[in-house]
Amino acid sequence: MAGNSFGKLFKLTTFGESHGPAIGGVIDGCPAGLELDFEAIQEELNRRKPGQSAIVTQRKEPDTVEFYSGIFEGQTTGTPIGFVIHNANQKSKDYSHIKDTYRPSHADYTYDEKYGVRDYRGGGRSSARETASRVVAGAIAKQLLKDIKITAYVDSVGKISLNKPHYEVDFSLIETNPVRCPDKAKAEEMEAFIKQIRSEGDTVGGTVRCVISNVPKGLGEPVFDKLHAELGKAMLSINAVKGFEYGSGFEGTKMKGSEHNDLFNEDGSTKTNLSGGIQGGISNGMDIYFNVAFKPVATIMQKQDTINKDGEIVEMQGKGRHDPCVVPRAVPIVEAMAALTIADFFLQNKSSKL
Amino acid sequence: MAGNSFGKLFKLTTFGESHGPAIGGVIDGCPAGLELDFEAIQEELNRRKPGQSAIVTQRKEPDTVEFYSGIFEGQTTGTPIGFVIHNANQKSKDYSHIKDTYRPSHADYTYDEKYGVRDYRGGGRSSARETASRVVAGAIAKQLLKDIKITAYVDSVGKISLNKPHYEVDFSLIETNPVRCPDKAKAEEMEAFIKQIRSEGDTVGGTVRCVISNVPKGLGEPVFDKLHAELGKAMLSINAVKGFEYGSGFEGTKMKGSEHNDLFNEDGSTKTNLSGGIQGGISNGMDIYFNVAFKPVATIMQKQDTINKDGEIVEMQGKGRHDPCVVPRAVPIVEAMAALTIADFFLQNKSSKL
Amino acid sequence: MAGNSFGKLFKLTTFGESHGPAIGGVIDGCPAGLELDFEAIQEELNRRKPGQSAIVTQRKEPDTVEFYSGIFEGQTTGTPIGFVIHNANQKSKDYSHIKDTYRPSHADYTYDEKYGVRDYRGGGRSSARETASRVVAGAIAKQLLKDIKITAYVDSVGKISLNKPHYEVDFSLIETNPVRCPDKAKAEEMEAFIKQIRSEGDTVGGTVRCVISNVPKGLGEPVFDKLHAELGKAMLSINAVKGFEYGSGFEGTKMKGSEHNDLFNEDGSTKTNLSGGIQGGISNGMDIYFNVAFKPVATIMQKQDTINKDGEIVEMQGKGRHDPCVVPRAVPIVEAMAALTIADFFLQNKSSKL
Amino acid sequence: MAGNSFGKLFKLTTFGESHGPAIGGVIDGCPAGLELDFEAIQEELNRRKPGQSAIVTQRKEPDTVEFYSGIFEGQTTGTPIGFVIHNANQKSKDYSHIKDTYRPSHADYTYDEKYGVRDYRGGGRSSARETASRVVAGAIAKQLLKDIKITAYVDSVGKISLNKPHYEVDFSLIETNPVRCPDKAKAEEMEAFIKQIRSEGDTVGGTVRCVISNVPKGLGEPVFDKLHAELGKAMLSINAVKGFEYGSGFEGTKMKGSEHNDLFNEDGSTKTNLSGGIQGGISNGMDIYFNVAFKPVATIMQKQDTINKDGEIVEMQGKGRHDPCVVPRAVPIVEAMAALTIADFFLQNKSSKL
Repeated sequence: MAGNSFGKLFKLTTFGESHGPAIGGVIDGCPAGLELDFEAIQEELNRRKPGQSAIVTQRKEPDTVEFYSGIFEGQTTGTPIGFVIHNANQKSKDYSHIKDTYRPSHADYTYDEKYGVRDYRGGGRSSARETASRVVAGAIAKQLLKDIKITAYVDSVGKISLNKPHYEVDFSLIETNPVRCPDKAKAEEMEAFIKQIRSEGDTVGGTVRCVISNVPKGLGEPVFDKLHAELGKAMLSINAVKGFEYGSGFEGTKMKGSEHNDLFNEDGSTKTNLSGGIQGGISNGMDIYFNVAFKPVATIMQKQDTINKDGEIVEMQGKGRHDPCVVPRAVPIVEAMAALTIADFFLQNKSSKL
Repeated sequence: MAGNSFGKLFKLTTFGESHGPAIGGVIDGCPAGLELDFEAIQEELNRRKPGQSAIVTQRKEPDTVEFYSGIFEGQTTGTPIGFVIHNANQKSKDYSHIKDTYRPSHADYTYDEKYGVRDYRGGGRSSARETASRVVAGAIAKQLLKDIKITAYVDSVGKISLNKPHYEVDFSLIETNPVRCPDKAKAEEMEAFIKQIRSEGDTVGGTVRCVISNVPKGLGEPVFDKLHAELGKAMLSINAVKGFEYGSGFEGTKMKGSEHNDLFNEDGSTKTNLSGGIQGGISNGMDIYFNVAFKPVATIMQKQDTINKDGEIVEMQGKGRHDPCVVPRAVPIVEAMAALTIADFFLQNKSSKL
Repeated sequence: MAGNSFGKLFKLTTFGESHGPAIGGVIDGCPAGLELDFEAIQEELNRRKPGQSAIVTQRKEPDTVEFYSGIFEGQTTGTPIGFVIHNANQKSKDYSHIKDTYRPSHADYTYDEKYGVRDYRGGGRSSARETASRVVAGAIAKQLLKDIKITAYVDSVGKISLNKPHYEVDFSLIETNPVRCPDKAKAEEMEAFIKQIRSEGDTVGGTVRCVISNVPKGLGEPVFDKLHAELGKAMLSINAVKGFEYGSGFEGTKMKGSEHNDLFNEDGSTKTNLSGGIQGGISNGMDIYFNVAFKPVATIMQKQDTINKDGEIVEMQGKGRHDPCVVPRAVPIVEAMAALTIADFFLQNKSSKL
Repeated sequence: MAGNSFGKLFKLTTFGESHGPAIGGVIDGCPAGLELDFEAIQEELNRRKPGQSAIVTQRKEPDTVEFYSGIFEGQTTGTPIGFVIHNANQKSKDYSHIKDTYRPSHADYTYDEKYGVRDYRGGGRSSARETASRVVAGAIAKQLLKDIKITAYVDSVGKISLNKPHYEVDFSLIETNPVRCPDKAKAEEMEAFIKQIRSEGDTVGGTVRCVISNVPKGLGEPVFDKLHAELGKAMLSINAVKGFEYGSGFEGTKMKGSEHNDLFNEDGSTKTNLSGGIQGGISNGMDIYFNVAFKPVATIMQKQDTINKDGEIVEMQGKGRHDPCVVPRAVPIVEAMAALTIADFFLQNKSSKL
């Protein structure tokens, strides 16, 4: 059912397949009167774009967004913001190898089971190309949120981990390397590893950490729509994500309450922040931080056995230009989904009290 | 905004505070014609109930559910199922110690910031008592789902971990011990550890694993409402949950694509199942399995410094009867939320194709 | 699908059948900090109650509402307000005459077609008894809306019509007669007619007019959720309603634009108000007014041919105590639904601009 | 809040302003496997298009729809259908006369009050141009509904009324005249009247009747989402609509129950159909029919006093090419909204019973 919308008051609906004429979306509920910085929106798209560095897919997509509505004289009008990104790459590819064959650990098989038909070109709707629309909407959400800072970075690639709490990280280093890891040495190590993996025709996973600072207190709607529950859903809706943890996360399960509790300062802030900025599903004003787990990309440049529509075992091998590791390009997507989530709760919270 | 509902077609709305006259809920969208097994519903409530064993809170709550509507001659009628659980414990407690004081790592502070007022008795709305309503609805969802089996168990308590893949677990052992860990030796070790922690006035976290078998192919709605994204939200909405991972989860991020891909058998099943039964957000018919991380209970029987409403540092200590570790009682709650999620997608999927 | 909720931010979900143990509802989204006047709530219920005068059904129902949650020390807390009205009349009735027989122009046949099963006792879910829950929620919405005045009255009974524009009506007369028509002579005429109709074992329809004054400008959400579109849906969801018109309504279709346009005064108010206080789906601050058409009650005390479940023609006659005309008791229901609609838009409008 | 979507399972979201680069929409939830007839879609757009006859606005808009997604090899894929209609007329107009001036009985004033800013060109979002997107989606809904026939026609223009029950109407006559009134003599009378009104620089209202035949029993979701309540909302959301009535409507309020009740035939059909095909909010298989009231167009070619943004009285006169009467072009819009409503309930009803 209508699973292509995210948010309740700041609501994004996306459409589009990887190799159709265009992808795009509608943002419904953006308040009127927001002066948009269009360069900043395009800049976010560029951070996600293929071909931006040597360690990502070398496909060419200009990823230029066109706005069709909801903006007048540079300002939002409160009416829905419709936008489109035309697909440059839509024609001429040869997809005969996946038309009737199910790629392992892709969505080909399940789409066919669910819908009885699928647009097999480039993954169709299941392609991560759809996330470009999220980045557009997330960029607008960021502008709405003004002083709330949303920053993501690569925390691990395979077994190489940054191994630093977020409050020791120098965010200014994130964009200084193609991996988007805010540590020169680790970034180089990760980059070398990604290149090696690619040379093997293989792929690898990784994790992205996101930190949200300067969050107003009171965001989040108990009991089902807790702030971290919606953040978790937002992250898990990104292609290739396998896990989400916030604050102390899975490590926190090994701790005692006496170690884990965040004691208060007199101003309501806490001395520690194992809670990850959220208590009872509601922001407490401390930094919100969380980790997102991305599996290795399923398309590998090695031969694999798989099945075709007739249930026969056939051999296949990935073609085209794919990412050996998604986390560098996932960073702006994680930020976008975080921004959408926070923007929605920001608007929802206007009704919490008289 | 209206955060007290879960699901779209099989939709639960809950109400109620820990120490108000009653908690309860409304299930809207349960198809007509389902013969209900009321004993099975009560049995699920009993699995969640306080006082069920020596290692959980010794509070007394009969937790008897009364149905007010939507059922006629033992059968659902398609109209909303309203139900109520009266609170036995609602009176006479002394809450003066938390009325004006914020318990560390609880929701007291954030509720006050959000709403400007809170029912401080026993945690009010933020109490896990609310989950009893989820268990009622989940029990009905389970009956709707018939052959789909949803089984959760304790996978770790503190650092003590079962350390077994789910397919090697003997589910018949789960209910043979108060921890709900399907391994006699590990269960005893966990139980002893919980008792020791309690004797220190402390608490500890843990993880619950859930396995869903016999799932029809095609459940889940891309792109935002992916099956695992909604499962993740469902789990993260449970009190004290800090993380969610499915299939290979966080460990999978360290793998290569060539190791991680699940190769097909001729019948569409897969030789491995690192995907966790979900590809592209849609079930593929293999077992769905996931882990849920629970932090240590915040209420400890040790003295802690905290602040009151006036921002003054005061000393406080937990009172009353609390769980030293929530995971044994969380098992039926995890199952209930999984059942609600799957039931909702089961109904949604009726519209996926002509 | 889940059709038992109304509203998005101020959201009511109702449950309950006419002759089950109880009816009730959950209000989710009422802002925290509202001091409730419980007598005023009960007073609204009393206006809707059976047995209140000689011209309505003489059934006995105390219709006492119990609140189970969401209120603490007389104030809303921002958490869901669960409430219940126990059914006094639930037992011992004889329904054998409608168990297998479909009453003409009732919902018996359609419920059976849709659900395959129905609670036939007293109409079950299709009974107007459900509207008592709406009145409870509407009474709270009225209190939230404070200075916005919502006033309904009977405008016609059968062919007897008040025949006055709303701005010439003296609202203080509404509750001075059992018909709730704000004109002594007309009310007496209507009352006499209703009594005569009842003596014939028959029923009659009528219309209710509602006026909403002191409405803030800007309420309503184009394009689908226009203020009058949601008001229309709200009214059409009330049992027995066949039509809705606002402002100039159906008569306005006969006018010319030059007659129909409402010219502005310098302060933005309009010299006429054929628009009915709404332009482009958004309130303009003028009085909102609309008419609601109620058909004659289907249960008559005369013999009618009908069919049973086996498709055989059988004779039936209404039993029990039914309203000969619903409009007097519909007045508080119309007000309640108007209040719910306005309250919802009031909260929604908080997000319309920066 | 996000008022630009209609439907729950078959869900349309529209975007676009009258004179922006494009309008369009996203249909989310259309089942996979529907072979689309693109000519039929364009034909519906043509029925709504400006310039189609001498009695409608002579603006030029090709109104050609482009589909961007959700369709593969002529078939729906279950993924969202994004579409766009580029605005041909978007440039070069002179809007200085409405930039700072509020047209009487238009949405200019209320948009400014609500949003603080508005796209004043050609009415912006409040223009009926938005309904072209509805017609696209409605045309697809019609194809999904196959054998369910949805037919609208003009029932009155000003005081000239067809004055026939729908079952005496010859639907084949509707498209034989520019008024879309299925009666040659009445249509000519109406056409002459519209021309005369236009020659006076004035406008006039009218009503559209819609008949839905061959409806499956069981559509509609009590209690708030009754079939006629959603139909009413759908119609009231169309620009210029002031009223909705179904079945016996407002006239039915004057009848007695003994006259109004629809007695059953043995097969469950009814001898009369004052219920309008809906009982208790659920379709009973009989024809659904309803009337929609359209006010006279607010833009007239006569001088009127109005106010500007500074609250000063100024004189204005309509410019450009406007409809003297909207009902002929409203016919396909009414059908489209009816189709969207029925399609949504058709999908919802799949979950009503086991």
